[in-house]
Formats: sequence, C-alpha cells, structure tokens
Amino acid sequence: MAGIMFQDITTLLLDPQAFKDTVDMFVERYKDKNISVVAGIEARGFIFGPPIALATGAKFVPLRKPKKLPGEVISEEYILEYGRDCLQMHVGAVKAGERALVVDDLIATGGTLCAAMNLLERVGAHVVECACVIELPDLKGRERLNGKPLYVLVESH
Amino acid sequence: MAGIMFQDITTLLLDPQAFKDTVDMFVERYKDKNISVVAGIEARGFIFGPPIALATGAKFVPLRKPKKLPGEVISEEYILEYGRDCLQMHVGAVKAGERALVVDDLIATGGTLCAAMNLLERVGAHVVECACVIELPDLKGRERLNGKPLYVLVESH
Repeated sequence: MAGIMFQDITTLLLDPQAFKDTVDMFVERYKDKNISVVAGIEARGFIFGPPIALATGAKFVPLRKPKKLPGEVISEEYILEYGRDCLQMHVGAVKAGERALVVDDLIATGGTLCAAMNLLERVGAHVVECACVIELPDLKGRERLNGKPLYVLVESH
Repeated sequence: MAGIMFQDITTLLLDPQAFKDTVDMFVERYKDKNISVVAGIEARGFIFGPPIALATGAKFVPLRKPKKLPGEVISEEYILEYGRDCLQMHVGAVKAGERALVVDDLIATGGTLCAAMNLLERVGAHVVECACVIELPDLKGRERLNGKPLYVLVESH
C-alpha cells in the first residue's frame, strides 16, 4: 500500500457533535433539491449516506462490492490506485428520471465516484451532485467526474 | 452458499418512511439509556448504526473486517456458517466504563454479534444490548449471546 494517501474519518465519528454538524451541512445543502435517491458507496458511504437520506426524505441505495447484493444487479468496473474493482447496484432500486445524490467519505482519484455515477445514469437517473467529506485535490479526482458537480467539506493536501 | 438463509434489508431502505420508522423504533428504545457508544458491524450495521448514534448523541464506532481500519486495532476471530472471519475495532475508540449498543441488520447464528461484544468488553465497556432489524430464530443465535439482551424488530422463519 506504499504511496497511497489515506485519511481517516473514524475519528470524526467519535465526536457526536462533529458527526452531527457534518451530516447537517450536507442536509442543509440538499434538503430543497428534490433528491429522491441517496446512493452510498460501500463501506464508508454507508455511514454518511443514510442520515442524509433520512433527513431529506430520500431512499437509500447501497452501491456494493461484487457478491454482496442478494438480488439482480448491474455492475461497473473501475480502476483504483492499486488495482481494479467493481461496484454493483440492485436492478429496480432506482428508476429513470430520479434525482440522485452520490455519497462517499472521500474522493481520491475519482474512479469509484465515476463508477457510481455510471450505474445511476445507466438506469436513467439524473446525478445531481457527488458529496464527500474529504477531497484529496492533489489526486485531481474532480477532473475525472465529467463536469458533474462535487461538493466536499474539507480539502486535505 | 447453499443452505445459507438470507434476508434482504435493502428493500426496506427504498421506502423512506419505512426506513425512518425503523430507525425511530430503535431511537425511542435507546434515547434514555445513557448509551455513549453505538458500535456498528460492517457493512449493513453501518446503515442503521449512525442514524441511531446521531439521534441519541452517542459516538459511532465501526467494527470492521481485517485491514480496513487504518489505526491500531484489536481483533476477534469468529466462526460463521460458511467459514471463519474476524472483526476489528480501533484501540482508543471506546473507553472503560462506556455504555455500548451493538447494531447490525440481522442476527443469524450470533457469531458476529458475539465477536462485537467481546471487542467492547475487552476494553472495559458495558454492552447494554444488541439491536438488529431481523432475527432468524431457527438458527438460535440468541442463545449464543451469553445472556446479553437482544432486541429485534422482526422475526423471520
């Protein structure tokens, strides 16, 4: 794992007020955006996505690694800093025309977020924005998002 | 995977009101129990644990598979229906004397919940209860919890 930057959001979760403030910042931004789908990326996107979904009245759709979702899935392969990976979404979870928010804890090279957006757009959803707690801007992941807006709370250099 | 029972909570997450009602039932039960730690088990415990932590003012502590947590960890191995696995917790995340709630989506044989409780008790925390959405009572997981209370919303036979 040499050369891989890593930022740890678990310390944020140990401070209840800081965790609440973090979620509230996202909720404030998205509560009036008619988001019907919050798609969270396994596994740390599962920590931030559901509270945003609950507060905005959206459904929560988990995007998972292969062989984790029990129903029929569609898949997107993508390239990581340290190899290949794949993200899957349940068929039928998101309908054409729905407005989706993609949530993860961190954007590094942007490969995972791209795969997530592709899954949603393949079923006809509109990706309103990607939301992450932390951005590593030196890795230029934002440039890989094909012009889709990215909202982050913290930049880490 | 023959013979393994599987219950899918992702359909619940597609109904925002049902997901909210589910979280609210847990929050109602735990809001006055002086819980300072909600420990969620990777990965579906990450979906239900954080909203409960946020609403009760507890910290959220992720219990993860090996090599996922970036800091120093303690580990508990356990036996699953289909092999061995291991759960880890960050050293320092939970202090002696803290009151902890363990959250997962489902209890099957109870092995994962036992490992989670062991991690918390090894650092001196008091496990108040384990909370799951679904119990598969035919697998008798409840009997493996060494008398620790288990609260579930649904039994599935």
